[in-house]
Amino acid sequence: MARLTRKQIGEMFGLAPGEEERVFTRVSGYETADAEAIVFARDAAALEIAIESAAGLILAPLGTAPGRDARVAAVKDPKYAFAVCARWLEGPKAGGVHASARVAESAVLGEGTSVGAGSVIEAGVRIGAGCEIGSRVTIQAGSKIGNGVVVQAGAVLGSTGFGYVRGPDGRYVRFPQIGTLWVGDDVEIGANCTIDRGALGETRIGRGTKIDNLVHIGHNCRIGEDVMIAAQVGLAGSCVVEDGAMLGGQVGLGENVEIGAGVMLGGQGGVLPGKRLDGAGKVFWGTPARPVREYLRDLARLKKG
Amino acid sequence: MARLTRKQIGEMFGLAPGEEERVFTRVSGYETADAEAIVFARDAAALEIAIESAAGLILAPLGTAPGRDARVAAVKDPKYAFAVCARWLEGPKAGGVHASARVAESAVLGEGTSVGAGSVIEAGVRIGAGCEIGSRVTIQAGSKIGNGVVVQAGAVLGSTGFGYVRGPDGRYVRFPQIGTLWVGDDVEIGANCTIDRGALGETRIGRGTKIDNLVHIGHNCRIGEDVMIAAQVGLAGSCVVEDGAMLGGQVGLGENVEIGAGVMLGGQGGVLPGKRLDGAGKVFWGTPARPVREYLRDLARLKKG
Amino acid sequence: MARLTRKQIGEMFGLAPGEEERVFTRVSGYETADAEAIVFARDAAALEIAIESAAGLILAPLGTAPGRDARVAAVKDPKYAFAVCARWLEGPKAGGVHASARVAESAVLGEGTSVGAGSVIEAGVRIGAGCEIGSRVTIQAGSKIGNGVVVQAGAVLGSTGFGYVRGPDGRYVRFPQIGTLWVGDDVEIGANCTIDRGALGETRIGRGTKIDNLVHIGHNCRIGEDVMIAAQVGLAGSCVVEDGAMLGGQVGLGENVEIGAGVMLGGQGGVLPGKRLDGAGKVFWGTPARPVREYLRDLARLKKG
Repeated sequence: MARLTRKQIGEMFGLAPGEEERVFTRVSGYETADAEAIVFARDAAALEIAIESAAGLILAPLGTAPGRDARVAAVKDPKYAFAVCARWLEGPKAGGVHASARVAESAVLGEGTSVGAGSVIEAGVRIGAGCEIGSRVTIQAGSKIGNGVVVQAGAVLGSTGFGYVRGPDGRYVRFPQIGTLWVGDDVEIGANCTIDRGALGETRIGRGTKIDNLVHIGHNCRIGEDVMIAAQVGLAGSCVVEDGAMLGGQVGLGENVEIGAGVMLGGQGGVLPGKRLDGAGKVFWGTPARPVREYLRDLARLKKG
Repeated sequence: MARLTRKQIGEMFGLAPGEEERVFTRVSGYETADAEAIVFARDAAALEIAIESAAGLILAPLGTAPGRDARVAAVKDPKYAFAVCARWLEGPKAGGVHASARVAESAVLGEGTSVGAGSVIEAGVRIGAGCEIGSRVTIQAGSKIGNGVVVQAGAVLGSTGFGYVRGPDGRYVRFPQIGTLWVGDDVEIGANCTIDRGALGETRIGRGTKIDNLVHIGHNCRIGEDVMIAAQVGLAGSCVVEDGAMLGGQVGLGENVEIGAGVMLGGQGGVLPGKRLDGAGKVFWGTPARPVREYLRDLARLKKG
Repeated sequence: MARLTRKQIGEMFGLAPGEEERVFTRVSGYETADAEAIVFARDAAALEIAIESAAGLILAPLGTAPGRDARVAAVKDPKYAFAVCARWLEGPKAGGVHASARVAESAVLGEGTSVGAGSVIEAGVRIGAGCEIGSRVTIQAGSKIGNGVVVQAGAVLGSTGFGYVRGPDGRYVRFPQIGTLWVGDDVEIGANCTIDRGALGETRIGRGTKIDNLVHIGHNCRIGEDVMIAAQVGLAGSCVVEDGAMLGGQVGLGENVEIGAGVMLGGQGGVLPGKRLDGAGKVFWGTPARPVREYLRDLARLKKG
């Protein structure tokens, strides 16, 4: 089991010295904390409650509690420090393919990568090292997955995209969906998501991007790095979402939409095909999406009548 | 096979006496009804059609057809009586785990609980009695499921929630998602739903709550009893939905939203993070959600220009 | 492996004669094209790029490039011709049930139908010829599937619908969901979709209809032929969608909604229970959905204040 000493934590976050040899083995909430548990307090009020717990180490904001309890360690961002400790305490990944998973002979899995029960990894798929592929995941041919990627239960990667051409008889013929899917390092993909491979080209999810449950990403989308995509978001084909953008729950993007770097689009917002939203840190909302101030002004006008 | 006599049905719903020993073995629509089938008529017009069928028992509203056909039984709420008969006729559940399901040794299943093909029940999960876990369901560690719970195919219970902390390098680290999921008795969960476990605490679904397909419920949500959640609804983390509330299809709730007891929120309605909707029987609609009258008045104003 | 000669393609699309015996084995994008590959150009600008590729045949619009390169073949609709060639080159389907799929003994599968890993086909299900059932699909009892149907990974067909009756004690009892599901020829259903069987009657998906990922279709819906349904659309119970209609991504229809033949409803549009939209080729948008011109005029008015 992984463990952290007070000293190690001190070195990571520049803590003032404490009981340096003390050992911690887990993070927890206040109720279930014990002497080996690390907890965090987001502010002075939370710290009051944290101190009542049995936690062995309390990460608290700088300046909240100078010296009042030996267990309190002041850091710049306690929540971040807590998350980093949690990650560390998970320890190295064992890896291994569950007996009931079906991994094609020609698929390649990196070291320490695990594949859960009932998952299906098709021919030619390449998965990097240290990945956690949950239970009942499907990764279809033509997919290449980086290192440290997490895919939760039921997700489908590399599915056939939705592209059809209507013939002179009024019937639809499928446009070939024979492209690829590329997923960068440290991407996390939620349960029951569906991510289509490219039609002729590539669908791309950049390093560090996090995707919540039940998200749909259409063929040929290009998602940048460190993008946050909340649950039930849907991207039609060929969308571009640049680095650090944030899409709220149930957002919908039409075909060929572009979301600029660092743009935030509020929940249920919708963008018309071919449009672009731009401006790092700028917040958009509504359907069709507009700057949030404008949207709220519109709503206020409605109320006044 | 389960069966009901006219007498038993009479006792359940206070029917006037009829052919007391007559036996019914199924419920059905009009077209496929036979002498052993029970049908219902919601009103006098439907009763005209029902009488043309070969059904052996016709549940009809009080007062619609006094004595015109021996098969007609007048009850206060024929649809409800029909549903209760249907439930009864399903009989006791056989239970049993399909050979292809993967149930961890340390998981505990109650009597009469069935687990369908390809399902995955992780270590330490506890499932009560008389539950129906469909095919290809995943129930992750940290989940405790009550009695009489129905989980349809492809649902994922106890998935890892969507919580990250951004570091000084701009990259996201996952906040620990090590809490639990508690599901009360008689809850029903639709196909391909995703319900996250708590981050540090608990996600809770109260007794009798019904959840349609493709619904997402984030970490630490607390859903009350007898709540109705239609398809594709999405709840961000830490929402509270109180007893008897109703959420229409594709509703979206931001983080920390509270929906008061008995509130109805119309389809596609959206609520901003931290807001509360209140008032039993009150109907809300739109994004951001407002009382339906207000929303419709706003729309009417728009049209007038 | 399937192959097409220049002559065969010429006969299909009325091409001017070329190197009639030349053989093509695949379609591709420009970058990966070789002498056996067919590509297409949607217009004169694309043709310039296509000509730089190593493709053996370039399908181009009539009139774009008379005789400048022997590889260019002019057709009325190059994208359609390309899709038809792609379909042809897929060749006959091998069929076959993956060893890990669970097909009930009483289920019937047509010739050339394939069932992927981990899929579950319940008792009494009938599937036609030449179907492709992906991995981890569930098709529940009471489902009848036509010929040439494609069902992608994780989809659930014939699930239990969302219908409940509230009793005098305030608790919900499930209305029986014992009907059937009928899916016509050449229907395609995306990954992780959920399609409910009828309550007492039938849910129906007409020939040639195409359904994208994560779509929900409630009990007793009747979908016509050649309908296009984009990702994450949700249909409540008993909706009717007539032939050739198009529903954009995340559209939501309330119970008993009717969408007339050829109607187009833009992404995220919502229709109130019991309403009907009508007019072939007419475009609707917004919630509640109204003619798109009206919706845009409303938005413009808002901006003017």
